[in-house]
Amino acid sequence: MTKSIENKLTGLGKDLVRQIKDGKNPNVEIPIRSLSNIKFDKKDNLLTLGDQVSKRYFFNVAHAKKFLQTTLVASFCKELVKQGIHASIREAYYSLKRSIGNTHENTFDEQSESDPVIVDLEVTLDILREQLHLNADRSGVAAGNVIILDRGDTINWGKLGSGGWSVPSNVEDIAFKKVKAKFILVVEKNATFDRLNEDKFWKKHNCVLIGTHGQAARGTKRLIHNLYEKTKLPVYVFTDADAYGYYIYSVIKSGSINLAHASQEFATPSARFIGLTMRDIDHYGLQKYTIRATDSDIKRAKEMMKYPWFQNKEWQHELGLMVKKKIKAEQEALASRHLKFVSETYLPEKIRKKDFLP
Amino acid sequence: MTKSIENKLTGLGKDLVRQIKDGKNPNVEIPIRSLSNIKFDKKDNLLTLGDQVSKRYFFNVAHAKKFLQTTLVASFCKELVKQGIHASIREAYYSLKRSIGNTHENTFDEQSESDPVIVDLEVTLDILREQLHLNADRSGVAAGNVIILDRGDTINWGKLGSGGWSVPSNVEDIAFKKVKAKFILVVEKNATFDRLNEDKFWKKHNCVLIGTHGQAARGTKRLIHNLYEKTKLPVYVFTDADAYGYYIYSVIKSGSINLAHASQEFATPSARFIGLTMRDIDHYGLQKYTIRATDSDIKRAKEMMKYPWFQNKEWQHELGLMVKKKIKAEQEALASRHLKFVSETYLPEKIRKKDFLP
Repeated sequence: MTKSIENKLTGLGKDLVRQIKDGKNPNVEIPIRSLSNIKFDKKDNLLTLGDQVSKRYFFNVAHAKKFLQTTLVASFCKELVKQGIHASIREAYYSLKRSIGNTHENTFDEQSESDPVIVDLEVTLDILREQLHLNADRSGVAAGNVIILDRGDTINWGKLGSGGWSVPSNVEDIAFKKVKAKFILVVEKNATFDRLNEDKFWKKHNCVLIGTHGQAARGTKRLIHNLYEKTKLPVYVFTDADAYGYYIYSVIKSGSINLAHASQEFATPSARFIGLTMRDIDHYGLQKYTIRATDSDIKRAKEMMKYPWFQNKEWQHELGLMVKKKIKAEQEALASRHLKFVSETYLPEKIRKKDFLP
Repeated sequence: MTKSIENKLTGLGKDLVRQIKDGKNPNVEIPIRSLSNIKFDKKDNLLTLGDQVSKRYFFNVAHAKKFLQTTLVASFCKELVKQGIHASIREAYYSLKRSIGNTHENTFDEQSESDPVIVDLEVTLDILREQLHLNADRSGVAAGNVIILDRGDTINWGKLGSGGWSVPSNVEDIAFKKVKAKFILVVEKNATFDRLNEDKFWKKHNCVLIGTHGQAARGTKRLIHNLYEKTKLPVYVFTDADAYGYYIYSVIKSGSINLAHASQEFATPSARFIGLTMRDIDHYGLQKYTIRATDSDIKRAKEMMKYPWFQNKEWQHELGLMVKKKIKAEQEALASRHLKFVSETYLPEKIRKKDFLP
């Protein structure tokens, strides 16, 4: 794996050298990531990138700096991969920032210049940032009957007490040695993770429990994807009943606009939405525990109703109800019944009845 | 422990019953938490609460609702402790929110009403929210030669790969079985935790590594405190060179205004600041990798210069330099030297030279 990544990076350099020897204007071909080139693949339930590409030239005043930045990042990543070490994208920025000669011109002025170049490389070489040994921020926690192998350590997610395993930003080298579970439950909030962990939900129901702490970080999305690919277990996502929560689900399931080029590596199209839904509010008597939706919540829900990946009657109905009723509800609202209601009644019932949104 | 907490809660109830039987206006005595009653104890290097108290009466139109809320929270916590289960403060709010009779009056309208009542109880009964089985949000990760016992699991922080142990919000019941280390290193950023973990810093230098991910959560502060109390090892805190980072340090060391009533349980007064300092910027050649401080950074630094717990020449000098130079610097700026500079040169040198701020 490492070797093929290194080869792709070296290939980019060799290609440039060949262009120079051929007397051509050196250029890199980069797939376009703007909205016009992003499609929703209905069959696979995935956001993907189209075929449009642009060329970045060395001899072009508008391109020259970006060309330089692209080769700098590529060369930095080649060293990382070769040495077997990783860097955060912020460290990468600092590592590559320098003044050019005696000028006041910097190679990179801000991280906002290096980040898009990193994505350019991901897309151009068709490899993930993580495989380039670049890490983003982490967030996420896991528990359950899973044994993994990571940096020589054998780690049992079922033996980590109240804490759980902190999901790192880069899970490329993590191997699943043993997974004994019937499904994978992904929850939005730490408080819900703690509730289900304390109530031994994953033991009683034989599942893997993953907390995302809001929008899932790249490492956590990739972990869910990899765990699904390894086991083909059903994946259920549990969020608040609000536009933000529904979007968290859709990103786990179908990918996101920003990551359209890597949906196949991050998304889990078979994922199902277990709750909270607008219908749950009535069904479970939570009417007095809802929150009034703000104008921006409503605006967001209306936007989402237009997304191609929400074009099915169930989600149109769900989002429509939210817009009509102008309310939202949190996972913790279930505590109004009683604290263990979520683990003893709500989730088991939803799973038994297969009461999911697609 | 559980028994004594339950007794304190029951005691509060019994006291109210006695007052009622005596024909008194039932009241709860609550220490005042406003700034006027907060002191800095120079000798112990701790923020603490003074002696001022207020009384909350049942027969007082201005107090009646808060009185009701106080007893509701106390009774809820008694059940939690008795049943041995925990709740997030958001779950507590939902559990206790209900309409009174046929009115539209709620016991609690917002969590912003239940949260201060929880703190009132902490202060009144002199027990921590965590001991009342109430949890706040978690954030924090740990690695190192430490073996803990948590909910029946024996967990070795040294065998958790690239992930580490996710520090829960409540660490009251966690026992340290074995700690083999020379010091405890607390770092602000996940990226720095990942760097030091990948570089095996904690193995090579025989330390415990704890990441706070910004301002330390209650669970992480308590974990540092407990680990120090258990081992009396030196604690070094490593943050960005900015007002925000310095404040993270001061909260770990001396407590905070919001938590002045519990400083003795959360703070670690012997902690030392290892970096990043303004002097480091020159000493380690980071001048080109600083960031211009914003007006609000400067304002914050000036405010901090007036805090009693920054009244020593080293911190006055440090904060003064920041105000004068109008710059700040991030931990990751050290990557401009080379990626492993922080783990191979910077930290070992600072520790060897005992180059700390008090």
